[in-house]
Amino acid sequence: MAAPIPEVVILRLPLYFRVLTLLQDETEIVSSQELGARLQITPAQIRKDLSYFGKFGIQGKGYKVNQLLGELRQILGLDRKWSVVLVGVGRLGRAILDYSTLGPHGFHITAAFDTDPRQIGKKVGQLIVQDIAVLSDAVKNQDLNIGIVAVPPSEAQEVIDRLVSCGIKAILNYAPAAPAVHSDVRVYNIDPVVALQTLTYHLKCLSTP
Amino acid sequence: MAAPIPEVVILRLPLYFRVLTLLQDETEIVSSQELGARLQITPAQIRKDLSYFGKFGIQGKGYKVNQLLGELRQILGLDRKWSVVLVGVGRLGRAILDYSTLGPHGFHITAAFDTDPRQIGKKVGQLIVQDIAVLSDAVKNQDLNIGIVAVPPSEAQEVIDRLVSCGIKAILNYAPAAPAVHSDVRVYNIDPVVALQTLTYHLKCLSTP
Repeated sequence: MAAPIPEVVILRLPLYFRVLTLLQDETEIVSSQELGARLQITPAQIRKDLSYFGKFGIQGKGYKVNQLLGELRQILGLDRKWSVVLVGVGRLGRAILDYSTLGPHGFHITAAFDTDPRQIGKKVGQLIVQDIAVLSDAVKNQDLNIGIVAVPPSEAQEVIDRLVSCGIKAILNYAPAAPAVHSDVRVYNIDPVVALQTLTYHLKCLSTP
Repeated sequence: MAAPIPEVVILRLPLYFRVLTLLQDETEIVSSQELGARLQITPAQIRKDLSYFGKFGIQGKGYKVNQLLGELRQILGLDRKWSVVLVGVGRLGRAILDYSTLGPHGFHITAAFDTDPRQIGKKVGQLIVQDIAVLSDAVKNQDLNIGIVAVPPSEAQEVIDRLVSCGIKAILNYAPAAPAVHSDVRVYNIDPVVALQTLTYHLKCLSTP
């Protein structure tokens, strides 16, 4: 691959994928204007983002929905199933396990771990909560690729280090912490405080024009 | 204000704020190199981001931690408390209510609503779940500024429309949907599927060098 694709572009690809999925029963061709209107992204930005991956559009018409969906599926690695390990089965971890939209998108939480002895051995959904001490075996035996971390912030770095030492290279972190990892590991932090702080920036701008 | 600040810059400001908060007891001055190492962001990017808001750094030394914290607090609108309304008190909504880090950051969920008659009138945490039909009164009477949406995807657009019609201009949306709103309303979507799909892009890149 040539120059690395900017991270902000990668972050928008799943949004394109989602909107195209919604559109595929409605239309065969969609313009960057229509996509842009649905996503509040300028058409020029959409064309630029997609141009990183090749020439998909038809000049003056737009994109073939099914073709672009297929391309994005391949680019994003969505043409296969992914096995996910959950660490932390408190209320948030259980809400994530409940979250029925993961499966249809090809993400399957196939193992759950906790550090709390009171949780270990308990059944949550279809899974038995395991002791984090045996994480390494599970990652190998079950071909786990992605970790979801839903532990208290004070435990996040240790849990993430352990996932990484077991070979996990992609982590979705719900703990409000800024964990440090080696550069070949990608951590996506889902953090409501950070989200709220960008929203208050917006509110502040509205009130002080 | 001059040209609008790029959204990606705004999204990084809370990360700077968080790291600086952690650093304030350790050091008086921090370089963009040190900040960058902690956040996996290049020092040049950090200097560029902050330069949008004025000249904060001391040439060749770095940033005064307390001063930059104060500036960011003001820029992000964190020098006040914010009242938040939660819509949807299922397992996810309750996990959000439980989330003890919001309060110390100045975000207080002071009202909770649901559309499900079985939830209305119940006590969750310190709040009584109210009928969404009376949302408008609550927003006015309690000076609610921000909405958190934790309803099923099929209800998200309607709930968000209702929040907007009551005057809410900032929404943190946990429903896996891409809601459409007027351009003066800001929606921040927290969506594990989108997050996981950017992680699989990364895993795919690692496996096909």
